[in-house]
Amino acid sequence: MTYCVGLLLNEGIVCLSDTRTNAGLDNISTYRKMFTFEEPGERVIVIMTAGSLSVSQTTLALLREAIDAPDATPETSIMLAPTMLQVAGIVGDALAGVREEIDHKLSASQGASASMIVAGQRKGGAMRLFLIYPEGNFIEATEDTPFLQIGEHKYGKPILDRIVRPDSSLADAQKAVLLSMDSTLRSNLSVGMPLDLCVIERDRCVITERRRIEAGDPQFRAMSEAWSNALREGFQRILL
Amino acid sequence: MTYCVGLLLNEGIVCLSDTRTNAGLDNISTYRKMFTFEEPGERVIVIMTAGSLSVSQTTLALLREAIDAPDATPETSIMLAPTMLQVAGIVGDALAGVREEIDHKLSASQGASASMIVAGQRKGGAMRLFLIYPEGNFIEATEDTPFLQIGEHKYGKPILDRIVRPDSSLADAQKAVLLSMDSTLRSNLSVGMPLDLCVIERDRCVITERRRIEAGDPQFRAMSEAWSNALREGFQRILL
Repeated sequence: MTYCVGLLLNEGIVCLSDTRTNAGLDNISTYRKMFTFEEPGERVIVIMTAGSLSVSQTTLALLREAIDAPDATPETSIMLAPTMLQVAGIVGDALAGVREEIDHKLSASQGASASMIVAGQRKGGAMRLFLIYPEGNFIEATEDTPFLQIGEHKYGKPILDRIVRPDSSLADAQKAVLLSMDSTLRSNLSVGMPLDLCVIERDRCVITERRRIEAGDPQFRAMSEAWSNALREGFQRILL
Repeated sequence: MTYCVGLLLNEGIVCLSDTRTNAGLDNISTYRKMFTFEEPGERVIVIMTAGSLSVSQTTLALLREAIDAPDATPETSIMLAPTMLQVAGIVGDALAGVREEIDHKLSASQGASASMIVAGQRKGGAMRLFLIYPEGNFIEATEDTPFLQIGEHKYGKPILDRIVRPDSSLADAQKAVLLSMDSTLRSNLSVGMPLDLCVIERDRCVITERRRIEAGDPQFRAMSEAWSNALREGFQRILL
């Protein structure tokens, strides 16, 4: 499985994904699930994927092919599309097409599908954050719900529900997604290190921070331990 | 949906369930999901259910009929069975039988199923806590994993993973299941108040505490707020 989360805040966008892929519990590997597309100062797009690796890899390959194609148009290339909404549409169409094709091949066994988070901004446009369903339709993060999650989203949702507001700082937002991931890592074996974190500051149209957090990263471990201690202390202080 | 959790601790057993049942989000009602069977000082059994109401109601009705039947035997009645293991077996068989029958009726549409937690002790025996799967097979809580959950279990698992140990006190255990439920209530609409809480102290073979917690219960609300504050303060103190 997978856990990916994206936050849409006044100050910018924060994205975090894990890297564990498994075909059964005895066949675990590491695959990047976060993909970035940048034309610095003009356009920045982050795509995170959950679900069947065959579906998401093929979809990403198609999106890249369409960008590089000599006859690329604003209708086919996410680097030319005039709005983030149209970017989400192109990703959704590609995903739905691939899923349908692979589903067809797999019809004898169980189907395969994937969902994606698409985040970004183009110069002059608004920052936007979308969740693309396997069927290709999508929803968008709003003021009321400034975060979107795919994959094993439930373990890490309570902390986001309590902490993340549109006016959260980017530092707090990074802490929140990392602690949300930490809860997921602890409670579900199928989500695993290393992690990919990226931050897009508002209106800069560039990835302002990008970090791969390896297993045993001392900073992440210290934060995880501090959070465990804070939870235990908080728990002890509460009266029944 | 549902959230039920049972803890098996050195000092006793703690069970908590919500009461929300829904057939679609526009058809919500309140049903008790915790059922107790007591012969004080001799035997105490708690059953909690998640899944299709038709399956769990019919299963409970069969179990009660078998208890009251004039020809009840240790093989058919959970109040006569000589061990908790055999109690779990009787519940599992009843559940699997009902599921199969209802599945058969529903075969045209989607099937129906339920899972259950069975907890209890009989005089001279050990306290035991089982999770019964829809197919009737079951697993048991152990020293390493002293809690079992059914229904919407993921939101409330991180706090249990961090707090609950076999040597947790019954007071701490009650706090832990209530906070685990609180996280679930906040993050998932399909789980709802009121709650049913019960405590079985070791070797007393009786339900030593039983509480229904209504929506707006001031004590529960105060605890929930204190926990939110503790989380926020803990979060602020952590350095990225």
